[in-house]
Amino acid sequence: MPNYALGLDYGTNSCRSLIIDLENGRELGSTVFPYPSGDHGILTDPNDPNVARQNPQDYLDGCVSIIRGAIVQAHAVDTAFRVEDIVGIGIDTTGSTVIPVDSDGVPVVFQDAFKDNINAHVWLWKDHTSYREAEQITNLAKEVRPEYLAKCGGVYSSEWWWAKILHIRNVDAGVYDAAYSFVEHCDWLPAVLAGNTNPLTLTRSVCSAGHKAMYNAAWGGLPDEEFLGRLDPALPDLRRRLYETADASDTAAGTLSAEWAGKLGLPEGITIAVGAFDCHMGAVGAGVKKGTLVKVLGTSTCDITVADSDVADVPGLCGQVLSSVVPGQVGVEAGQSAVGDLFLWLVHHLVPEGYGADVSEKFAAMEEEMKCQLPGASGLLALDWNNGNRTVLTDVRLSGLMLGQTLHTQAHEIYRAYIEATAYGALTIINRMEEHGIRVDEVVTTGGLSLKNATMMQIYADVLGRPMKVSRSEQTCAMGAAIFGAVASGYASLTKLQKVVVEYTETIYQPDPSNQSVYAQLYELYKTLHDAFGKTGWSGSLDHVMKDLIAIRENQRTS
Amino acid sequence: MPNYALGLDYGTNSCRSLIIDLENGRELGSTVFPYPSGDHGILTDPNDPNVARQNPQDYLDGCVSIIRGAIVQAHAVDTAFRVEDIVGIGIDTTGSTVIPVDSDGVPVVFQDAFKDNINAHVWLWKDHTSYREAEQITNLAKEVRPEYLAKCGGVYSSEWWWAKILHIRNVDAGVYDAAYSFVEHCDWLPAVLAGNTNPLTLTRSVCSAGHKAMYNAAWGGLPDEEFLGRLDPALPDLRRRLYETADASDTAAGTLSAEWAGKLGLPEGITIAVGAFDCHMGAVGAGVKKGTLVKVLGTSTCDITVADSDVADVPGLCGQVLSSVVPGQVGVEAGQSAVGDLFLWLVHHLVPEGYGADVSEKFAAMEEEMKCQLPGASGLLALDWNNGNRTVLTDVRLSGLMLGQTLHTQAHEIYRAYIEATAYGALTIINRMEEHGIRVDEVVTTGGLSLKNATMMQIYADVLGRPMKVSRSEQTCAMGAAIFGAVASGYASLTKLQKVVVEYTETIYQPDPSNQSVYAQLYELYKTLHDAFGKTGWSGSLDHVMKDLIAIRENQRTS
Repeated sequence: MPNYALGLDYGTNSCRSLIIDLENGRELGSTVFPYPSGDHGILTDPNDPNVARQNPQDYLDGCVSIIRGAIVQAHAVDTAFRVEDIVGIGIDTTGSTVIPVDSDGVPVVFQDAFKDNINAHVWLWKDHTSYREAEQITNLAKEVRPEYLAKCGGVYSSEWWWAKILHIRNVDAGVYDAAYSFVEHCDWLPAVLAGNTNPLTLTRSVCSAGHKAMYNAAWGGLPDEEFLGRLDPALPDLRRRLYETADASDTAAGTLSAEWAGKLGLPEGITIAVGAFDCHMGAVGAGVKKGTLVKVLGTSTCDITVADSDVADVPGLCGQVLSSVVPGQVGVEAGQSAVGDLFLWLVHHLVPEGYGADVSEKFAAMEEEMKCQLPGASGLLALDWNNGNRTVLTDVRLSGLMLGQTLHTQAHEIYRAYIEATAYGALTIINRMEEHGIRVDEVVTTGGLSLKNATMMQIYADVLGRPMKVSRSEQTCAMGAAIFGAVASGYASLTKLQKVVVEYTETIYQPDPSNQSVYAQLYELYKTLHDAFGKTGWSGSLDHVMKDLIAIRENQRTS
Repeated sequence: MPNYALGLDYGTNSCRSLIIDLENGRELGSTVFPYPSGDHGILTDPNDPNVARQNPQDYLDGCVSIIRGAIVQAHAVDTAFRVEDIVGIGIDTTGSTVIPVDSDGVPVVFQDAFKDNINAHVWLWKDHTSYREAEQITNLAKEVRPEYLAKCGGVYSSEWWWAKILHIRNVDAGVYDAAYSFVEHCDWLPAVLAGNTNPLTLTRSVCSAGHKAMYNAAWGGLPDEEFLGRLDPALPDLRRRLYETADASDTAAGTLSAEWAGKLGLPEGITIAVGAFDCHMGAVGAGVKKGTLVKVLGTSTCDITVADSDVADVPGLCGQVLSSVVPGQVGVEAGQSAVGDLFLWLVHHLVPEGYGADVSEKFAAMEEEMKCQLPGASGLLALDWNNGNRTVLTDVRLSGLMLGQTLHTQAHEIYRAYIEATAYGALTIINRMEEHGIRVDEVVTTGGLSLKNATMMQIYADVLGRPMKVSRSEQTCAMGAAIFGAVASGYASLTKLQKVVVEYTETIYQPDPSNQSVYAQLYELYKTLHDAFGKTGWSGSLDHVMKDLIAIRENQRTS
């Protein structure tokens, strides 16, 4: 008898569902719900580009829509499908996406008095209004709790939990006081479905706690009261209204309540797994394991792998949290601030219509042009920092750099240089991991870019010197969530389910040895620029850079 | 009774004439003759992009055409005009543009046996086939005659006299042996008009001799036989078939021969001034004097000023030659390898049609967009080295650099950054001059760019911190040639004629103090990149560069 699992993936602008057959990974149904509020689901402030909020009602409405939609599809695809055979539900969301809630776990914004207050809404991960508070937290931790920073790359971000809460406290006492507690989106939704949103007892995810709230069992959970008190006298008291422990997603957050079973058209009692962040579950859905790095390639990237629980702290990575990806192993997270965004910026602003009438024609024509070019033949070298550098420099105050232009340089050569730059950035992350004992034997990519752009994938293989696989599923996050739903229900182990369910496209991109050796030379030059412009206190010599690039160019053009 | 002078300006693709009224500088006639041979007058080799040759017949045909054309126009403009009132003819050409000639001074290529031999043609200034010979000359001079290099910026160029002659000797013994001597284009044409092309007695210009052939009266004229012999055993003998002395353009090369008077429709006996290079005469036509730097703004720039005869050697300038510009003073030449070319490259390859349908619409729209932007507001900083660096680094093996891009950077901001980069390059030249005692109080620009692009001119004034004037005449080279024609005839002094004839447009661009202070900060960063990438042996720190640019950007966007 077949069994199924249901994964829910809450992204930045929409949420989507996926029903999979646990015997073979077949995808039976998947629907999308674009959040209706604000601008593509995001509430903004015309006077402050840092503001990004959401309406929690969108999450609830979306939940009903995408689950009911997927069920209809599954029945249509397979008449044998029965909702009674769904063993578990897993949920991933963006984060740190913080909801101010009352003592029942109901969002403060659902109260009439706060329904028009943007600060009472959900604070979406990409809200950057809390940058001053993030700096305050970084500075204090550097001084008195360096161990907190060692787990999150050395810099606390304005995108994260404590910075947001502290900012609410600083700018809107009304909301802060009305909030009995705060809950991550990825913890709130499982709690809602399980029918227990009490902030003191709902299950908290170790993924969000560890990566965003400086939670670590080794130091007793959340940051201690003394530390929090030095940030703000109100925080120690809040700490008592948060949580002592956090769990991995192989744990059940509860079972589907009668109320929500009715809304969703599902039987009561289905296991709800503890939630986690989208990329972390996406990595599982793409087959992450020791030695495999999963790169979720989108506008930016999220790079995830896992390591033994005794792995050392790696400087410059975004986070290292036990059980945040695979239970019992350390989830290791890194990221590149701009990949797809970089290519889109180029094609929107600097590619003439000679390449095509629209964005996709231009990309296609440029990829066609660059096929015949050898590595280094353009003489160009770029840094991929147009949106700062997330890993390993963790510095937003960096910018782009392009070097080697002549009076003949063309747009498709610049495009290729940016692809290469993002590959060099990826290699820098991998090298940093390996220097600290985290092996990377192969790289798996997920996301539309990796399915669409074979030229890019081959360049990545040549630069990284490792085979590159592509996830067959375009819903790896929801896939990972579904896997955790099944694991939390006790249906099977994570390892076994990954083996059964995870598939790759046929093409595995293998490094070409001769391209690899040219890229090794180019990477040395990239690393020189990377360190020269990005590493505090660097000093050295750059007079060789342009000459080396010209020599490589001349060599490649005549070869 | 009015008096006139005739100037002839031989450019890379065409030649043009100018008849001026010596009482007031009025331009009575000017016509252009595009060279009919090859590709826009240039004979090329599809297998070697370094080849650039010309057909000397084009010079002769052009001479007749442009002089007769100008005379017709002058009669039409002023019925009082009479060819008998033309007191002198001056001629400028490109250089080092070298003609292999027989013992009568007739181009070897006019012989039937050589008419299809590209090596027997004129070796145009921009022919770069002789790069190995140039290196050989630089290396030998460094070792045994450093004083030769001190007058030409430390590096001998493949564009210059001895490199070309040595290359002919190396690659085409037939042409070398058929050539009794070699003559610069700027010396050959006055000799032709004056009816004496004997290579041993025709007048040679100190401008070409000093700037390109390492001629200096201080060391007895051309390089000595021992030096030449070490380059090639044949050269000492050739030296005896060249010249002992060279003259300034206030000297007469002769008077118009009966034969050419007939061809041209002019009276016999008009004074022909000694020739010189286009930019050098152009500087005179733009009013060069001590304290005034003339920038001939074109695809690249030629920067000319004059200094006292006891001025020290300035490292990195292209040349310092007594009387090469103004007789009795040292002509000081510098240059930037790409200015107009840089902007054209950008607009052709990296500016989308959103700015306009063609090149001029795109330029106009970008200039309009950048008007509202403050210096530094884009956060961009570029090096102007897409075509190498002529002054002060004298290094062709350099390339472009653009830094500070974000995901919002637009094409017009990049255009502005390149304008600024060329201005920083210009300031670097001026600073180098002033550090060695050559004062620059004001800058005069000539060329279409300076007439068309007011935005660029204001940026230059703000960066250079000096008033910028624009030559009213669009024919400053021909104007300078005409002035020398009159001076050589004894009609009036150079200083007096410049006062009467040279005019500027009404707008004088004055530095804006607040922009100037921002540009002073940006220039420090430019200089840091300039030295880091361009100066051998530089070592230092660059980690502040991107952060400083972001700080300036933030400051300028909120101001």
